[in-house]
Amino acid sequence: MAKKSSDSSLRGRLRVPGGEPVDLSGYDPGATPGGPRDKAAARLAVERTAGRLAGLQERLWAASTAGDRRRVLLVLQGMDTSGKGGTVKHVAGLLDPAGCRVQAFRAPTRKERRHGFLWRVRRALPGPGELGVFDRSHYEDVLVARVRELAPPEEIERRYGQINAFEQALAEDGVTVVKCFLHLSFDEQRRRLLKRLDRPDKRWKFQPSDIDDRALWPAYQEAYALALERCSTPYAPWYLVPADHKWYRNWAVGRLLLEHLEELDPRYPEPDFDVARCRRRLLGH
Amino acid sequence: MAKKSSDSSLRGRLRVPGGEPVDLSGYDPGATPGGPRDKAAARLAVERTAGRLAGLQERLWAASTAGDRRRVLLVLQGMDTSGKGGTVKHVAGLLDPAGCRVQAFRAPTRKERRHGFLWRVRRALPGPGELGVFDRSHYEDVLVARVRELAPPEEIERRYGQINAFEQALAEDGVTVVKCFLHLSFDEQRRRLLKRLDRPDKRWKFQPSDIDDRALWPAYQEAYALALERCSTPYAPWYLVPADHKWYRNWAVGRLLLEHLEELDPRYPEPDFDVARCRRRLLGH
Repeated sequence: MAKKSSDSSLRGRLRVPGGEPVDLSGYDPGATPGGPRDKAAARLAVERTAGRLAGLQERLWAASTAGDRRRVLLVLQGMDTSGKGGTVKHVAGLLDPAGCRVQAFRAPTRKERRHGFLWRVRRALPGPGELGVFDRSHYEDVLVARVRELAPPEEIERRYGQINAFEQALAEDGVTVVKCFLHLSFDEQRRRLLKRLDRPDKRWKFQPSDIDDRALWPAYQEAYALALERCSTPYAPWYLVPADHKWYRNWAVGRLLLEHLEELDPRYPEPDFDVARCRRRLLGH
Repeated sequence: MAKKSSDSSLRGRLRVPGGEPVDLSGYDPGATPGGPRDKAAARLAVERTAGRLAGLQERLWAASTAGDRRRVLLVLQGMDTSGKGGTVKHVAGLLDPAGCRVQAFRAPTRKERRHGFLWRVRRALPGPGELGVFDRSHYEDVLVARVRELAPPEEIERRYGQINAFEQALAEDGVTVVKCFLHLSFDEQRRRLLKRLDRPDKRWKFQPSDIDDRALWPAYQEAYALALERCSTPYAPWYLVPADHKWYRNWAVGRLLLEHLEELDPRYPEPDFDVARCRRRLLGH
């Protein structure tokens, strides 16, 4: 995968080099690397590629009917209001919902807590030909779990390796894992939370605990930086997507998906039946 | 539900009266009852109501975050090429995919066959606030199972009652079940199958067994008629949707959903926190 990324691809630009310390303060959440110049241009760019994205998804699905086991898993992580839900809506809105498996992960239930942290994730994986989207994921178990000390430190440490082994096994099983960290600024989060409070039709998305989490902002940024450092691998890289501009975030995630699907280049299967003969039979019935 | 259906609603027009024999030959698959006059008008009508539909879906989801357990299950049945997949694409395309749970049912796997026929259906039900879409469903177990004699006749007979009990329990649990039979003509199916054969990008959807099924057309029609007669109930009525015109079919299913959601009239929950106080805290952080 790494060898195919050229500088001109968005993958090449947004990819986080793994294995080295990440300083999130060095990345501007308001930047638009490689992107269209503004909201209107982004909308046009999305419209122009929507057909190609949908076509590739259909071919991925068609190929699976003939035994191709490949599939794509898009993982979205980011602070509250960074736009995970909005990205799901935008990206999945470009695709055929029948081939799209969206899963949001909230705090684990009592039943889920009785199993290893990867248990519920394994059950939600896309099948062959599908495009899965995770709104939050197994990374919560090294993010909120680290910041809120929901597990002993040595347990959290073990999880990075478990995640890498899990994602490598996925890659070997034909799953293209595309992980996007939606990088939001502290100030932009305040603006978005205020908007939720001020609009009666948005208020239900607000929780007072969202404000408590802001007090832990530096600890969260550190936890994200660690996850990016430890778990951006050749088989499942992390992409850092600046997310203060919604139009850039939407464009970028769609573009990353497109680049990955184009590399997969799924094909319609050849018919394993005699087309001319079926035609004749049909005309007789 | 019955008492709320007026003649002017599409629900009132398309609803199959249960408990009496259904003669499918009396329903024209090319009809457009209550619908727009043509394709262009249908597109306009859909565009005009798309926002309302999406808004109602968001409110249904928002209400569920405050404990409202209501949800909607759209069941699509019909012969091959009647447009189950196309309807999913159209209808779900109007909604937020995050709140939409699409499930296609194919021939049961070996594991599924070890359980009762409702087992896999129960596992795929939408959660509170969600809109579930079934592309085929538990009705296959009284349709293809009847025609192809996949189970003893007395077992098939028992299933109608089991289905009704199951759907009544769903209704009592807050699930609005909307069942649409996409009624296609024999000739239109031939046209659509020929198109699948002739277009390389559609050929993967074709199977020679689709032609064998055409030889069983009358038996399938009889099985559908029986399912409509036995299982159109006050708590989970069947709607007969003429499906030779794709634009009518799409419009009609969207409209049925809209009418049901408007009856549910879900509300944004009231905040259970002090908005002004949260505002002050946020401005300080």
